[in-house]
Amino acid sequence: MTTRLWGGRFRQPTDPRMDAFGRSLHLDARLAPFDLAVCRAHVTMLTEAGVVQGQPLIRALQAMESELAAGTLVVSGNEEDVHSWVEAELARRVGPEASNLRIGRSRNDLVVTDFRLWTMDACSRLLSRTRQLQKALLEQAERHPAAYLPGYTHLQRAQPVLLSHHLLAHFWALERDASRWKAVRSEADCCTLGAGALAGSSWPMNPSRTAELLGFSRVFENSLDAVADRDFAVSFLSAASLSMVHLSRLSEELVLWSGTEFGYLELHDSWSTGSSLMPQKRNPDAAELTRGRAGRVVGDLMNLLMQLKGLPLTYNRDLQEDKPAAFDAFDTLDACLDVLAGMISACSFRVDRMAEAAQDPALLATDLADALVRAGHPFSVAHELAGKAQVGGLSAEEQAEVGPLLASVTVESALANRSHPGAAGPRAVATQMDRARAALQ
Amino acid sequence: MTTRLWGGRFRQPTDPRMDAFGRSLHLDARLAPFDLAVCRAHVTMLTEAGVVQGQPLIRALQAMESELAAGTLVVSGNEEDVHSWVEAELARRVGPEASNLRIGRSRNDLVVTDFRLWTMDACSRLLSRTRQLQKALLEQAERHPAAYLPGYTHLQRAQPVLLSHHLLAHFWALERDASRWKAVRSEADCCTLGAGALAGSSWPMNPSRTAELLGFSRVFENSLDAVADRDFAVSFLSAASLSMVHLSRLSEELVLWSGTEFGYLELHDSWSTGSSLMPQKRNPDAAELTRGRAGRVVGDLMNLLMQLKGLPLTYNRDLQEDKPAAFDAFDTLDACLDVLAGMISACSFRVDRMAEAAQDPALLATDLADALVRAGHPFSVAHELAGKAQVGGLSAEEQAEVGPLLASVTVESALANRSHPGAAGPRAVATQMDRARAALQ
Amino acid sequence: MTTRLWGGRFRQPTDPRMDAFGRSLHLDARLAPFDLAVCRAHVTMLTEAGVVQGQPLIRALQAMESELAAGTLVVSGNEEDVHSWVEAELARRVGPEASNLRIGRSRNDLVVTDFRLWTMDACSRLLSRTRQLQKALLEQAERHPAAYLPGYTHLQRAQPVLLSHHLLAHFWALERDASRWKAVRSEADCCTLGAGALAGSSWPMNPSRTAELLGFSRVFENSLDAVADRDFAVSFLSAASLSMVHLSRLSEELVLWSGTEFGYLELHDSWSTGSSLMPQKRNPDAAELTRGRAGRVVGDLMNLLMQLKGLPLTYNRDLQEDKPAAFDAFDTLDACLDVLAGMISACSFRVDRMAEAAQDPALLATDLADALVRAGHPFSVAHELAGKAQVGGLSAEEQAEVGPLLASVTVESALANRSHPGAAGPRAVATQMDRARAALQ
Amino acid sequence: MTTRLWGGRFRQPTDPRMDAFGRSLHLDARLAPFDLAVCRAHVTMLTEAGVVQGQPLIRALQAMESELAAGTLVVSGNEEDVHSWVEAELARRVGPEASNLRIGRSRNDLVVTDFRLWTMDACSRLLSRTRQLQKALLEQAERHPAAYLPGYTHLQRAQPVLLSHHLLAHFWALERDASRWKAVRSEADCCTLGAGALAGSSWPMNPSRTAELLGFSRVFENSLDAVADRDFAVSFLSAASLSMVHLSRLSEELVLWSGTEFGYLELHDSWSTGSSLMPQKRNPDAAELTRGRAGRVVGDLMNLLMQLKGLPLTYNRDLQEDKPAAFDAFDTLDACLDVLAGMISACSFRVDRMAEAAQDPALLATDLADALVRAGHPFSVAHELAGKAQVGGLSAEEQAEVGPLLASVTVESALANRSHPGAAGPRAVATQMDRARAALQ
Repeated sequence: MTTRLWGGRFRQPTDPRMDAFGRSLHLDARLAPFDLAVCRAHVTMLTEAGVVQGQPLIRALQAMESELAAGTLVVSGNEEDVHSWVEAELARRVGPEASNLRIGRSRNDLVVTDFRLWTMDACSRLLSRTRQLQKALLEQAERHPAAYLPGYTHLQRAQPVLLSHHLLAHFWALERDASRWKAVRSEADCCTLGAGALAGSSWPMNPSRTAELLGFSRVFENSLDAVADRDFAVSFLSAASLSMVHLSRLSEELVLWSGTEFGYLELHDSWSTGSSLMPQKRNPDAAELTRGRAGRVVGDLMNLLMQLKGLPLTYNRDLQEDKPAAFDAFDTLDACLDVLAGMISACSFRVDRMAEAAQDPALLATDLADALVRAGHPFSVAHELAGKAQVGGLSAEEQAEVGPLLASVTVESALANRSHPGAAGPRAVATQMDRARAALQ
Repeated sequence: MTTRLWGGRFRQPTDPRMDAFGRSLHLDARLAPFDLAVCRAHVTMLTEAGVVQGQPLIRALQAMESELAAGTLVVSGNEEDVHSWVEAELARRVGPEASNLRIGRSRNDLVVTDFRLWTMDACSRLLSRTRQLQKALLEQAERHPAAYLPGYTHLQRAQPVLLSHHLLAHFWALERDASRWKAVRSEADCCTLGAGALAGSSWPMNPSRTAELLGFSRVFENSLDAVADRDFAVSFLSAASLSMVHLSRLSEELVLWSGTEFGYLELHDSWSTGSSLMPQKRNPDAAELTRGRAGRVVGDLMNLLMQLKGLPLTYNRDLQEDKPAAFDAFDTLDACLDVLAGMISACSFRVDRMAEAAQDPALLATDLADALVRAGHPFSVAHELAGKAQVGGLSAEEQAEVGPLLASVTVESALANRSHPGAAGPRAVATQMDRARAALQ
Repeated sequence: MTTRLWGGRFRQPTDPRMDAFGRSLHLDARLAPFDLAVCRAHVTMLTEAGVVQGQPLIRALQAMESELAAGTLVVSGNEEDVHSWVEAELARRVGPEASNLRIGRSRNDLVVTDFRLWTMDACSRLLSRTRQLQKALLEQAERHPAAYLPGYTHLQRAQPVLLSHHLLAHFWALERDASRWKAVRSEADCCTLGAGALAGSSWPMNPSRTAELLGFSRVFENSLDAVADRDFAVSFLSAASLSMVHLSRLSEELVLWSGTEFGYLELHDSWSTGSSLMPQKRNPDAAELTRGRAGRVVGDLMNLLMQLKGLPLTYNRDLQEDKPAAFDAFDTLDACLDVLAGMISACSFRVDRMAEAAQDPALLATDLADALVRAGHPFSVAHELAGKAQVGGLSAEEQAEVGPLLASVTVESALANRSHPGAAGPRAVATQMDRARAALQ
Repeated sequence: MTTRLWGGRFRQPTDPRMDAFGRSLHLDARLAPFDLAVCRAHVTMLTEAGVVQGQPLIRALQAMESELAAGTLVVSGNEEDVHSWVEAELARRVGPEASNLRIGRSRNDLVVTDFRLWTMDACSRLLSRTRQLQKALLEQAERHPAAYLPGYTHLQRAQPVLLSHHLLAHFWALERDASRWKAVRSEADCCTLGAGALAGSSWPMNPSRTAELLGFSRVFENSLDAVADRDFAVSFLSAASLSMVHLSRLSEELVLWSGTEFGYLELHDSWSTGSSLMPQKRNPDAAELTRGRAGRVVGDLMNLLMQLKGLPLTYNRDLQEDKPAAFDAFDTLDACLDVLAGMISACSFRVDRMAEAAQDPALLATDLADALVRAGHPFSVAHELAGKAQVGGLSAEEQAEVGPLLASVTVESALANRSHPGAAGPRAVATQMDRARAALQ
């Protein structure tokens, strides 16, 4: 039977199925370092406030933190959750005094404080991972300063663009993710210890001091809200969902580009799967799995939003389900960012195939029309003439005017002319690459 | 490094992160009994068709099935997935002949056939679990044939109903779930072995024979569709989502009813949590967790629908993510049904509190109005008089007419009059209970 | 101010914002024909049971039904909802007697009965639309009995398949949708009139008679469940979501195939968009919009599941939001099916491009391996040899054996050999096409 | 037939079903003021850059903006979308010159710039609405400085809290929403005009100048990303979803509290619905509708995330579906915030019922345990004694010690002792209220 903090003596034991149903130690074990830090800060604050003589507890908690980090202490046992495990382990070390941990504190405020610390840490890790993928994209862009390919709308070839411009398009999407991880970290950065079960405590608590010891910047405003609020977890899952959507779009292109039809990309052996039967074949499995796992993280978001819907204040046990969702999203996104970075760093672009595809004269229709506008035609007439030129529909007279302009319009000129900030040509992209490098500093 | 079926000799090894990213053995180990059965059926069919001399393989597979069931064979190792593990284990027993398993077969058709068998089994198990909860509800209804309480609309007391009627309302929702498990089982019941990687096989395959050996009723119509189709998994998740929604509604009532304000329900010690501090308190944790986990299963459904969106034919590696979603939904729903059945069987209803709450005279307004219609008033006038009666707004003359009618309307008469099929009164509920018993046969 | 049925005389008027917030006439106007039919059946039943003298009401309702169908009666006004509108219109025709409509009935059971009739009708319409798209696919398959293209896994060319086989893969997915529409129709097919507000009625109601008059096959079992249950609407949205996922997969292929890289498909002018600038260009907008709208319908499903989560019995006003979700899903899917059918019927396949792409020798590796197995090699050795053959890695001795076999393996032989039921070759597809035709009967 | 910008002359007309399918004028009409502003800024920039002589266009656009604002110009007609309508209307005023609008511009960059402006405006409006509801909560808190009620965990009475503290818990959740609206506004605040169809333009564009004219703070970094990015819309929907979840939690409490069992709240006639039959009854319809509509907005979020999943760069027509989702979420949240503010301002709290409920002695168990710790008992012993005291389980000796402490613990003392920042007692709440007032400045 699971050991429980609340197991009073007048009661019949809970049914083993009920124990198993509510048990979370296997899930929340990863909160252990945060739980220990929170317990230590709490006892320190209580000691400073003269509520307890906490030095023995503090020393024991420090020892546990070191051993956990070193791997000599492992979270396991039949406790209900990580909080019970911490107290039980502490009691094995210091005896019944361990229960003083619980003065002025409840699992309701403890768990959310732990979870906020985990979230802040997770945001920092995902920020690093995001930077890693941005770096992989930027390096590939730097390796191909002059390569170009058709840009697509509706998955139809539309206008020539530099390969580096295309790769940087994904860079900037990830840059928004990076900003988002900072913002979510800041949203989670609020110490909720001291809110107690729901109403705060009758002890002379100093929530600001606890916050300071844990490195939080802010303290809860309202104890009821403190134990009921999971906004930071929703924001975490929203950011993770959007990042996975970005990766799914990048992955879609990796799948398309590595197929025979596009043929723009050769995956490296180390980052693709193959078969003994078709040794030359490289399946873009990592990209496919990433694309598929976007659904998984969005499912986690849906999960948490639905959990929270219609819950009255304050703590309800439903909220135990917040962490599996967040942990799953973290693990998924963390691995996808890592793998895509490796895959992109190692892949080879087939710039010959790209250049060949970009020769399609339809890609220059816009530039021809622009040239006709410059030659004095109203926009609508220019468009019509450029259109006719492509389908061989010009009259002799029209052909006489359009012909020379047509000859002057090339992929190279089209790219060179796209020179304003943010545009697809070499001059603009050089500036853009500087800005991208600066963003990574 | 993970051992892979497709690892050809000309290639560099895959990056360990890529291996870890694509590995699924820890997830799909639970498919092992199904995979073994499918392999055995396949070799049997091939043997009958004269393609291979499969007896040694068949005997070895049978042995593996027995050992797995007995727990003397355990799925573990560094293989990529359960299919590789089966072949590797078979090779340890029969040597290179084991690779003949793969004649006329591919992982693409194998995995979906395994998954269909798992789904059929899961439907049967969830059907049993559903029956278990229906039984618990019916037994409580039978224990309280005469108890009544206010029925609610807008969570406002509206009209008196029998407690048994209320409990049976949840019974019928579960009855629809039971039908759905049969329907989903039947949707999954289609043998897809023989579809190969995507195009079928050049061997003289007999898909109907394989299906027969595995107990499937139907065979795939089109090999491309066979490896690409995950409709049955979506239907499984839709049914699981709806069932969890039903459980969340039941749980909401368990939470409400076990609070002090309603006070209709006393949870049993074995099925609630408490605290050493408030030993008399019983928190409805199992109901709250169930309510919260509705989000989890709906998240699984969202996950799979999003995975499938926009996938071209046929097999794409994204589809590997179908099983974690289905497995998670199964485990969640299975446990929730089990725990709620235990919790409901063991709880006590406080029929005194219910009866007291049902004395609210507003609950009889409808019956008074009906009496006034019977006395010859048009419906709108009757309603207005009944309304005035409740707020003391009748004239002396009106009072003279309404008074005697009012006296004749009681909770008992109101219930007795609701006697048509499906209504809330004792006569109708007795019939309804017969129908419920019959449904469980 | 909106006119309300429940507007009692002792109360202050509701705030106009509250009126606007709860008003649904603009949304539920499409229920009018169903509401009229239900009202007429109800009054007929009451009349037969001797509760009212309903002939004048019945005649007036019949007149309204005819006028509504003819377009001479239009739902409009300041009533709160369609039920209030029906009664108000009836009152304009027959006077205060109109209120007798409400005897033994409530808006709670009325609205769900209307909604069930709408759902049954919607299922029938979507079944027809599904048939229309299946027919378009089958006709294109029939037009191209011999054309072939590469079948794809991981969006990589894998093995040759007939174009008709590929088109029929989508046919069978739609066939499952067709089955689902019948199943959902049957789930909705349950008459809930007589459940009243929640408890049934004190009148001598005959729910079976009402059901019979309305063409329902079944009657509610439990009045509380009858007004609280929206399973049929969830099932409707689940089926619609899955169908939209099917259409999104088909659309993805239409987008891919109509691009320059694949070049397998030419969209017809009437079913694509273009530009004056690039007159030769045809954007697959209808396919893109369909693909995007899959999200919309899945969003509708998530909406309803989340609405229902945690709702206690019986009717809660939240349930008003069920209809906008279902109506939106119907309108979206109905249009997508219609447009895709038109688009597919009118498109041209570029079978030359397909055949060319299928010449890739890697597509025959499986067939070569099969030939080597037939020549006596174990499966694993055969695969390795076939793999080496593709990358020019055979020894002279191996080449001597493999060479002749290689020469004998062609796209034509590969297709011809795939002849078992469900396979990609001409013989199997001919049978499959017969089955498809039979399914449409 | 819909009038289309791209309707070239060599083509057959599009099928009317296709036209209807792609048409969005009825949806995007609300973008008209933004579209006009963007067009005017674009022509101004082009004029300043010497590309066109745009004065006549600028004047005509200004006139259109004024007329639209005044209601004398209305968006209607058979154009495909709002952009076509603007150009067509402009052409009616200035002739073919109107097509010069399109120089250096595309619908791809235009529509997203319009949509960003709309989003910024929508954020500002929702920020105001959020403030309105926060103000209603704060005013009710101010009206009830001393009222108290049981605080709840697991919907079980746990400890006494001030009513004002409870109301402010919702205030702070909304304060996070307010921050979020500012953050989303800032995310949308990036001018994307100049990105063209996807590659920028060959004209000497000055994107910064256009941004400045429109009041944007930033300019796009990459043209491909500019037309493909819908992160701001996802962030808008995430924020709206979370806000709706907050409102659903508040609504749940309004429903609970206004029922007979809790009886803490009396809704005002103007903000509830009733019935002629039960005139004393007030249904909390606005709260129920709000709770139900949380699903609607979360459905909109799921819709957009699913749309975006797996889309390759750059513009795909799928993206047309972004706006209906955002518009629907805005309309829903806007109305819910407005109605809840009205409902809360007008409701009456039954502080007598709350005070009575708070007398439950179990609510003081924590305070008794704290007193026992202060008297020298270790925490675990104190808890056990406090627990026994509640169930009459103390020995005579224990009773002698606990009795006097028990007498000293009252609701009043419990509240008074909860005085640290964020706690539920009067002193802390007074400070909290100051902070709330400051937040609204």
